[in-house]
Amino acid sequence: MANSPSGDSVTDRLVRILETFTPTRTAQTTADIGRRAGLPSSSAHRIVNELVDAGLLERDDERRVRVGMRLWELATRSSHALRLRQAALPYMERVQQRVREHTQLAILEHDEALFLERLSAPDSGANITRVAGRLPVHASSSGLVLLAFAPHDLQERVLAGPLPRVTPETIVDPTALRRTLAEVRTLGRVIAPGYVDEVSTGVAVPVRDETGAVIAALSVVLPRDAETQFALVELHRAARDTERALGYRR
Amino acid sequence: MANSPSGDSVTDRLVRILETFTPTRTAQTTADIGRRAGLPSSSAHRIVNELVDAGLLERDDERRVRVGMRLWELATRSSHALRLRQAALPYMERVQQRVREHTQLAILEHDEALFLERLSAPDSGANITRVAGRLPVHASSSGLVLLAFAPHDLQERVLAGPLPRVTPETIVDPTALRRTLAEVRTLGRVIAPGYVDEVSTGVAVPVRDETGAVIAALSVVLPRDAETQFALVELHRAARDTERALGYRR
Repeated sequence: MANSPSGDSVTDRLVRILETFTPTRTAQTTADIGRRAGLPSSSAHRIVNELVDAGLLERDDERRVRVGMRLWELATRSSHALRLRQAALPYMERVQQRVREHTQLAILEHDEALFLERLSAPDSGANITRVAGRLPVHASSSGLVLLAFAPHDLQERVLAGPLPRVTPETIVDPTALRRTLAEVRTLGRVIAPGYVDEVSTGVAVPVRDETGAVIAALSVVLPRDAETQFALVELHRAARDTERALGYRR
Repeated sequence: MANSPSGDSVTDRLVRILETFTPTRTAQTTADIGRRAGLPSSSAHRIVNELVDAGLLERDDERRVRVGMRLWELATRSSHALRLRQAALPYMERVQQRVREHTQLAILEHDEALFLERLSAPDSGANITRVAGRLPVHASSSGLVLLAFAPHDLQERVLAGPLPRVTPETIVDPTALRRTLAEVRTLGRVIAPGYVDEVSTGVAVPVRDETGAVIAALSVVLPRDAETQFALVELHRAARDTERALGYRR
């Protein structure tokens, strides 16, 4: 696409505009979008107007700008995320009904755990994950499963640090993390008490494709001192059924 | 954004590229994308490469292009669709568990019913709706609810036709459709036997905001001759609980 005088492409500027919208910042003025995206005011107004005309952004009654339903539709209807979560959803529902705690599906995306789905009963406990939200791979149960089965170079990159401390329980020592990852590969599951949230224990298992490669993690967030065995059995069963629904297992 | 010699903006070309991806066409060559988007080959290659670099599109092992996880993430994490479906999801699960048939959430988007969510048990019957898919408002149960409570000018635009016949049961006569919409407003629900799929009966109810305006439709797809009353009672209960979860009702 055409480049601006500063050399960034229109695609770059589009991405920078979309990145200013977050789960806690869903509506902004065009001036704020421009400032947060580092764009001159005139460029911001022109691009936002074009995106609103195309339906990718929307203006509300107070002239604030939001992500448009059309962008969600285009991004979702043919996405890999949708196929995976639709395959997993009936089995995630079964886990959620039986365990009665938050049940989640995550994939590895740019060295972080990206959550494709989260099911929560009205009475489920604390949970810091969000749909389309991310957590660090070394601190979350889903992330530890994804990291344990990730390509070697990615594992080494994460082990080389930094490993930020999210809670006092987070594994921040590379040697300890390496040991935990080896254990996850041996046992095929992780139990993460308080690693990412002091009041909770995450448990997670891998979902594999037909070659045995891990493509996702299924997890449950339990109260910190809860018994984990029942949740793990249900997660393993859901992972196997998801693999079957995806055609990866007979 | 900068315009091409033909006068269309880069945003237009971006939308045309995204629109070439559909639920049944999730991976394409760059040449096919360019052809389907009506773009010169050199433009298509340049724009697709930029979108791949930005993570909005992805290339698979066979060099085919797919919608990128990053686009899904950016479109989803701050979207209105997500807030509504997260509020409705626990109650949709309850409907799905009790009725044991497909349970759906739809909104009105550009004169069509856009489906934000669909829950299906492994043994649920036929269903033509998809997440991020659309159905005509005059033919689907969700669409009829959304149309019945839509602004007057939108109703008149749809009533002015054309009203395509999807099945022999679809209401294609404007006078009959007007009568049906009045009945939906009076009864607060619709029963649509065979209108969009001959083997199914859709039933749907409205979800309202704090002003009473209808913001979404909750629906269940039943076998054609199934009893509808139990599903409608469960849908009404889910709609009220969703309104409460959104803070629209005490």
